[in-house]
Amino acid sequence: MSVIWLNGDFVAADKPALLAHDRGLTLGDGLFETIAVKAGVPLRLDAHLKRLRDGADFLGLPVPTGDTSLHDAILGLLGANGLHEAAVRLTLTAGPGPRGLPRPSTPVPTLMLAAGRIPAEAPPAKLVIARTTCRNEKSPLSRLKTLNYLDSIIARREAAARGADDAVLLNSQGRVAEASAANLFLSLDGHWVTPLVAEGALPGTMRAALIRTWRAQERAVSVDELRRADDMVLTNALGLRKVSGILD
Amino acid sequence: MSVIWLNGDFVAADKPALLAHDRGLTLGDGLFETIAVKAGVPLRLDAHLKRLRDGADFLGLPVPTGDTSLHDAILGLLGANGLHEAAVRLTLTAGPGPRGLPRPSTPVPTLMLAAGRIPAEAPPAKLVIARTTCRNEKSPLSRLKTLNYLDSIIARREAAARGADDAVLLNSQGRVAEASAANLFLSLDGHWVTPLVAEGALPGTMRAALIRTWRAQERAVSVDELRRADDMVLTNALGLRKVSGILD
Repeated sequence: MSVIWLNGDFVAADKPALLAHDRGLTLGDGLFETIAVKAGVPLRLDAHLKRLRDGADFLGLPVPTGDTSLHDAILGLLGANGLHEAAVRLTLTAGPGPRGLPRPSTPVPTLMLAAGRIPAEAPPAKLVIARTTCRNEKSPLSRLKTLNYLDSIIARREAAARGADDAVLLNSQGRVAEASAANLFLSLDGHWVTPLVAEGALPGTMRAALIRTWRAQERAVSVDELRRADDMVLTNALGLRKVSGILD
Repeated sequence: MSVIWLNGDFVAADKPALLAHDRGLTLGDGLFETIAVKAGVPLRLDAHLKRLRDGADFLGLPVPTGDTSLHDAILGLLGANGLHEAAVRLTLTAGPGPRGLPRPSTPVPTLMLAAGRIPAEAPPAKLVIARTTCRNEKSPLSRLKTLNYLDSIIARREAAARGADDAVLLNSQGRVAEASAANLFLSLDGHWVTPLVAEGALPGTMRAALIRTWRAQERAVSVDELRRADDMVLTNALGLRKVSGILD
């Protein structure tokens, strides 16, 4: 039976752990990171923790644990679950609070770690361009990995209904932002290109690594360019997935 | 000590009640309603439950309890907490699920009721126009009362930092949508006006009642009109609050 780490303690994953008035649940007031672990080593952990702290700073959320302790907690979690390869999810919420938008004057944040298996390598993805919703690049949330994922869930449901594996979300200007839970890299005229964060792309840790490795260009990407790309790859913290094409 | 209703049972509000992998928390995959109770009677309950069911239909979430049972549960909750006047929050989530966007093939939703006190009448509100974020009227989420409230939290924090009580959120076109957790009615040339749902206003239950009572017009509202309005009111399910003005 699997175990999670919650505010410093290891607890059974199948037992109720959170108060009903945790603001992470009631208002989506929080952030998360998904960290790939290979051969017992959390990958790009510094980048994940930096993004978490930057997001928490922006939202005014305290992070109650230092990086070294978080690293130790991840290793403890892997040991407790007997895992060497895993997708570790770190969730930070504003913690419990009364009804209404303002947080308690001294928030007591909820910090959780849970480990799951890394999904098996998937075949190349068929994509659609989402029609039901779009990415709000004018909100700072588009640059933070928050608990507010319903637009992505809607887009993914639309993709499934249209016979595809994932959906490309456009921004408010109709340009390409990202997929429902992945960044998008396109090969155009022999060069790798990826939408700018200012266009609604989440600043993914794998995205940052690939921009360096592939010398990819960050820029605005139109739907026309998406349709005529020579090659396309979805990327997230857990890995890369090739794209087989865009369905109508 | 207060009691909540969770999936048919009354449980202590200060005891952990939810699994850490409830999708309401991990992804904001859910909806809520806030229902005013006066003299023991839930107000506009039919409108709240209709909005809940419409939203759940759109998101593909089952609502596990019928309207009559929910009404009974609310009355039971009020009794268990010794309340005749209350703000009852109903929360529906997609329930527990593994990592990733797709829901389990047979979701087991979480349905919760919690009762709090109705806040005391507040003095007229000073507003600012939010600069940090905006409402995404192109997403269907703008028409649903979802658990994704971080844009509103950010806007409210900005309002507090600028010495105001609440913030007006503009939509992607720079027109007026609503306040952080309230609809907005403006008196312009002797007529009440409120922004259209298509402009990013949540279809509030009190908003619907006031449109009928005041014969208010739903239409697009510019920032200029907001600044020159003769009178302004914030409305939500719990009541009305006058606006004293818009700060720069």
